[in-house]
Amino acid sequence: MTRIAIIGYGNLGRGVEKAIKKNGDMALTGIFTRRDPKSLNSESPVYALERLDEFTGQIDVCILCGGSATDIIAQGPEIAARFHCVDAYDNHSHIPEYYESMNRESKKSGRVSVISTGWDPGLFSMQRLLADAVLPDGHATTFWGMGVSQGHSDAIRRIPGVLGATQYTVPNEDVIEKIRNGDNREYSAREKHTRVCYVAIENESDAERIRETIVTMPDYFAPYDTTVHFISLQELHEKHSGMPHGGKVIRIGETSEGAQQTVEFSLQLTSNPEFTASVNLCFARAAARLAKEGKSGTYTPFDIPLAYLSSRSDEELRKTFL
Amino acid sequence: MTRIAIIGYGNLGRGVEKAIKKNGDMALTGIFTRRDPKSLNSESPVYALERLDEFTGQIDVCILCGGSATDIIAQGPEIAARFHCVDAYDNHSHIPEYYESMNRESKKSGRVSVISTGWDPGLFSMQRLLADAVLPDGHATTFWGMGVSQGHSDAIRRIPGVLGATQYTVPNEDVIEKIRNGDNREYSAREKHTRVCYVAIENESDAERIRETIVTMPDYFAPYDTTVHFISLQELHEKHSGMPHGGKVIRIGETSEGAQQTVEFSLQLTSNPEFTASVNLCFARAAARLAKEGKSGTYTPFDIPLAYLSSRSDEELRKTFL
Repeated sequence: MTRIAIIGYGNLGRGVEKAIKKNGDMALTGIFTRRDPKSLNSESPVYALERLDEFTGQIDVCILCGGSATDIIAQGPEIAARFHCVDAYDNHSHIPEYYESMNRESKKSGRVSVISTGWDPGLFSMQRLLADAVLPDGHATTFWGMGVSQGHSDAIRRIPGVLGATQYTVPNEDVIEKIRNGDNREYSAREKHTRVCYVAIENESDAERIRETIVTMPDYFAPYDTTVHFISLQELHEKHSGMPHGGKVIRIGETSEGAQQTVEFSLQLTSNPEFTASVNLCFARAAARLAKEGKSGTYTPFDIPLAYLSSRSDEELRKTFL
Repeated sequence: MTRIAIIGYGNLGRGVEKAIKKNGDMALTGIFTRRDPKSLNSESPVYALERLDEFTGQIDVCILCGGSATDIIAQGPEIAARFHCVDAYDNHSHIPEYYESMNRESKKSGRVSVISTGWDPGLFSMQRLLADAVLPDGHATTFWGMGVSQGHSDAIRRIPGVLGATQYTVPNEDVIEKIRNGDNREYSAREKHTRVCYVAIENESDAERIRETIVTMPDYFAPYDTTVHFISLQELHEKHSGMPHGGKVIRIGETSEGAQQTVEFSLQLTSNPEFTASVNLCFARAAARLAKEGKSGTYTPFDIPLAYLSSRSDEELRKTFL
């Protein structure tokens, strides 16, 4: 059994809690939170985060379930100094420096850490690497969606007069078809995706001002074709409270003049956090195996044999999966 | 530079020769053949296979490009006893015993071998493992095609009165859609694929007999819905002499009650042997890296970190692919 500690109990933490139930070789030692443990609605054991060290010896791997921007960047190195750990750190542009800080702590403590183990970064990154290696003379494109972007939904919610909002990132199907047909030009983010917003507001008379505020919002919406639908708060809760997401990595390359080869990986997820959590848990299994081999330091999804992610024996994998 | 020896010069061997030209870190030491070296139409150096040992020290990895049924099963262990090597051994049901015989020789010789490195077995196997690990409560289906099956085309060509034939394996799009929509029943091979044959014959009067012989052929065609089109030899050569192939691995699973998650990997290949060869070459790069680390024994695509397949540094991969 691999004994897991969940650090942080938001959507991702709840996803890990569910994923453990789907994996017979995984056990939950406890959920560790900065909030009042009694305030958490969970059937699992919940403890204050500052008590984590009391459980040394009962935890094989910590899974960091906080946000990347503020939680993980600070928590990661702290926990790597005492435990094997896994995260879904997703701030792409800061991965190299995060890797360095984690690797320093993990090497020092003789522990294993695996970073950026969600689906992007994570599974999508693995597919980008694999397709690039197989088709070096080629071009890859990543699409995200259709799915809910929490960051964009939050940005709308902060506009005065907005009661609630859900933002969907929608890939442009025409561009996907063009790329599948061998078009290898570099599409801008605007061309590749549109943004669709469902917004509940206090006063109907504010609709035009709020729409304008949304569609002109720099970085978030201004660079995209954005559609805003105003709906009631009830409809928003009923129809737009799920967390679907997904996307595609498509690489087209030539192996010789005119020999076009297409590799495509896609995800269609009804629950983004639960899927991310399931990926995290596989890498926790891998971290435990690396630790048993006496390894230490920081790994990424690129550095671990796929067999380490599986609960199945090498013999079974060769016999039934190869 | 990784110096490659191509063993066998059929479609796959020609594919490896082309793939080496697409990879700046790869060099071709030579093509080794059991035929008269002068009879081969290649610009690369060609040698008789029995001279292979003369090139010890000039070859980092041998890529075995013969057929699995008779060539590789015998050649593999012989070459593993003297060289690092990679193959696309694809006889799924015999992989465990082939692995054992290769591992014995590779361990004894202190060399690295990587087996079954094409796309199925190979990339598809990797995706099946990955999706199974992430979604243990789920169900995977593999489709092949649309693509040319050499074995089925050959079977038609052996019927008296047949001048030439090309057989396409075609996945059933309706079944694919059902599976994508969450249908997790086990479909039979017949339900999942149909077979379409283009056949040129000597005498038109034989058409009905030949059609009957094809569609009732045990194992090859009897279990499938098979369509036979009679065309001229000229049309067969003009329109059906390519080697396209492809397929899909789809896994649907639940991460909690009703939370359906879909992972899909697909290939659309205009040249099956060139793509397979490109995959083989990535694993040759990995074999050379494992050998440099002092490793020995037999590996499968499950046992090697993805980073080993890439010519890029770990730093570049973390920075631009993660």
